[in-house]
Amino acid sequence: MAERITPRSEDYAQWYIDVVLQARLADYAPVKGCMIIRPNGYALWENIQRTLDGMFKETGHVNAYFPLFIPESYLKKEEEHIEGFKPELAVVTHGGGKKLEEPLVVRPTSETIIWAMFKKWIQSYRDLPLLINQWANVVRWEMRTRLFIRTLEFLWQEGHTAHATYEEAEEEALTILELYKGFAEEWMAMPVITGRKTERERFAGAVTTYTIEAMMQDRRALQAGTSHNLGQNFAKAFDVTFQNERGELEYVWATSWGVSTRLIGGIVMTHSDDKGLVLPPKLAPTQVVFVPIFKGDDEKGRVLEATEALRKDLGKGRARVRCHVDDREEHTPGWKFNEWELVGVPVRVEIGPRDLAQGQVVLARRDTGEKTTVPQEGAAKAVRKMIRDVQSGLLKKARAFQKEHTHTLDEFEKLKEINEAHAGFFNVHWCGAEGCEDRLQEETKATIRAIPLDGKQENGRCILCGGDSKQRVVVGKAY
Amino acid sequence: MAERITPRSEDYAQWYIDVVLQARLADYAPVKGCMIIRPNGYALWENIQRTLDGMFKETGHVNAYFPLFIPESYLKKEEEHIEGFKPELAVVTHGGGKKLEEPLVVRPTSETIIWAMFKKWIQSYRDLPLLINQWANVVRWEMRTRLFIRTLEFLWQEGHTAHATYEEAEEEALTILELYKGFAEEWMAMPVITGRKTERERFAGAVTTYTIEAMMQDRRALQAGTSHNLGQNFAKAFDVTFQNERGELEYVWATSWGVSTRLIGGIVMTHSDDKGLVLPPKLAPTQVVFVPIFKGDDEKGRVLEATEALRKDLGKGRARVRCHVDDREEHTPGWKFNEWELVGVPVRVEIGPRDLAQGQVVLARRDTGEKTTVPQEGAAKAVRKMIRDVQSGLLKKARAFQKEHTHTLDEFEKLKEINEAHAGFFNVHWCGAEGCEDRLQEETKATIRAIPLDGKQENGRCILCGGDSKQRVVVGKAY
Repeated sequence: MAERITPRSEDYAQWYIDVVLQARLADYAPVKGCMIIRPNGYALWENIQRTLDGMFKETGHVNAYFPLFIPESYLKKEEEHIEGFKPELAVVTHGGGKKLEEPLVVRPTSETIIWAMFKKWIQSYRDLPLLINQWANVVRWEMRTRLFIRTLEFLWQEGHTAHATYEEAEEEALTILELYKGFAEEWMAMPVITGRKTERERFAGAVTTYTIEAMMQDRRALQAGTSHNLGQNFAKAFDVTFQNERGELEYVWATSWGVSTRLIGGIVMTHSDDKGLVLPPKLAPTQVVFVPIFKGDDEKGRVLEATEALRKDLGKGRARVRCHVDDREEHTPGWKFNEWELVGVPVRVEIGPRDLAQGQVVLARRDTGEKTTVPQEGAAKAVRKMIRDVQSGLLKKARAFQKEHTHTLDEFEKLKEINEAHAGFFNVHWCGAEGCEDRLQEETKATIRAIPLDGKQENGRCILCGGDSKQRVVVGKAY
Repeated sequence: MAERITPRSEDYAQWYIDVVLQARLADYAPVKGCMIIRPNGYALWENIQRTLDGMFKETGHVNAYFPLFIPESYLKKEEEHIEGFKPELAVVTHGGGKKLEEPLVVRPTSETIIWAMFKKWIQSYRDLPLLINQWANVVRWEMRTRLFIRTLEFLWQEGHTAHATYEEAEEEALTILELYKGFAEEWMAMPVITGRKTERERFAGAVTTYTIEAMMQDRRALQAGTSHNLGQNFAKAFDVTFQNERGELEYVWATSWGVSTRLIGGIVMTHSDDKGLVLPPKLAPTQVVFVPIFKGDDEKGRVLEATEALRKDLGKGRARVRCHVDDREEHTPGWKFNEWELVGVPVRVEIGPRDLAQGQVVLARRDTGEKTTVPQEGAAKAVRKMIRDVQSGLLKKARAFQKEHTHTLDEFEKLKEINEAHAGFFNVHWCGAEGCEDRLQEETKATIRAIPLDGKQENGRCILCGGDSKQRVVVGKAY
């Protein structure tokens, strides 16, 4: 709390670490690249989890749990899959004091173990679709890590579904993409663009990878969630067939999709400022903090009584507001203001004897810093409105920021110039050749983030080679 | 579904496996000793988790997440701890394609990593108590495994708390023990005895281990949860001190406590029968299944309408009943009755045209098999009552069973005889010597399950050596 947060303008990467550590979202673990998710961070994750879990269940998915350990041989069954994940594996070679006959891989993702089980569970079209989700930890041996954004171990959900047709799998992959987009925008207040990944960027083992991409405050892209149409790749690797309605055997069609604790990093980097964390109220563990201000027992009694009355009002009904009363006497109100701004509580309510004498309370918005005095009578309504205003204000601001830093360009030199100066999203024509994609990255350190789904058809010339292009793609430097 | 469940009387162990597999609670994983928790099993775990999580939060605990990997050297810092867990460790020796400098242990429990972090977070008495819980997977390399009861990887919660005094830690350990007992009895309908473990049986690194022990239908004991007073053992191992109110440095006092997916095995073995699973309604993912019975579209319309009306009634209000309507037309009602009995749904509602003509519906209880006809008008109330009756009926039955098979004995020969014939709980005098404890196990395969907390003081003679004893202990064969 007493420590200083590095301003964004000075060192953006350090600012991020300062906010995460000082708001006590996470801490470094003894094992390099791992993190501890501290109670403030985990409460945020619980809200993310609860909301997404409800959305998955509403769309017919059920949860299950598959093992952490996967026999090494399973991972090798799908060729592209093992190629993609091989450099990132953690391997258990000893168990119970003995060397294992076959090494076990700590899951980097669960397609292989799940499709080995789907083979047992799927026989007929009546067993389809099979719509399963898992909340779990996974491990990918990353070299350059950053709290929440890229860690050796992370928490996530991974959906794995099996279908009777390609079309059904495609529909599932897109349904989930829309669900992710809806969650990012309505709950996280983080606008995203949706699109398809290029062949080079798609998931190892997928036919098509869809993505949601957000723009952070340093104008770099964050891949916030992906949804894959896996075609029949895993069904073929694990020989999973089903009898269709005509009695013929067919390979099963598949999807998988996931979001992770990386979303917390996305929230931090979309909304926070030099004072600390700014949280979207819908996901904030505490939505309103009360700072009662008093001297002496007489004032204390009256102030705490008024505080409690308002807190009770806000705790009522279905739209229960998550409140906290900070009535500690060892800290000054000013100290508390800083502390609760640091941890990102969206709305602060100040109640002091002078306010009460005038029949009013003071509300302060974390996002804009704006202070408002409202009548004590009906204050609950004003607080609820402020909570909604913060939520919509954050989305609006983030949308404007994204729009401001999205450029439609046709000259490669111009792209290089802006990209170097301050990054951004660039809508450019690309011919589809991997050579041009590689050159783009070499010369700008930016990549094709997405081929937009709603991108309108437009004839143009590849920004690199001048070859034919039918649609613009989104380019940017990514986390 | 078509497979036969081995009757309990024929082979109890096989009956258990049959129920778990056929009710689709779990399946065997490719790695020996691991399991897949299937959607039916996981939904049960989610209900257990949600309930316990609420109880932890009400008692002031917050959730966090600590890493899966623990440096081997950390585990070695507490001597008894590493002694206890060494034979059960899974070890990661390679990461990212390279041999690691220091092997990483896959957590068998998280005391060591958590106390390494507590050292960073605790400075003053103002930082205490620190009341943290974690929901996670852990790995213990077990040789003789059984689905849910003992698996190589399992899901659990582990509470870890830090306190300023021994008394506070002791109070915490006992508070959690009571919380576990309350959950087992009120939610799982599984009566337990509470007590202290003997020195030989306590957790590696604990000063005192408290336990809840339940009796399964084969009269063997299931250790269903444990709560440990860790004294200052981990604080000393990790050098965690705090400045007390007088400004002096002291070592911190600790507890840890946990329950796991083993509880699902406890539910199965406490209540189920030769037809399959029997679930306590408070935890059952589906509490009421509707089987509408009809022939032809006319009957179908009327029957489904009545079904929907009752389902809607049951879905109202805060005491929302979890319902499922099985209106599949490819199966007969009889097939459905068997299927839903197999998966343990507590109450079945049958609605057919003849019932409707008479203005009634049929309710069937899973636990007793009893069928009741109730007027359609007000049927929701009757269903709700039946749900409550099943819950209380299961607890009552299990209590009676436990009582019936608990014996107060003073002759070792008698204990051996009953124990061999059909096991049970035996209240016997024990002098406290480890030699007698060892001999007991050698000669009977039973162990001292608990030294009861509420056991009345009573002078007696050790059932093994005849030495002085002040209190009876509970002996039984355990899972």
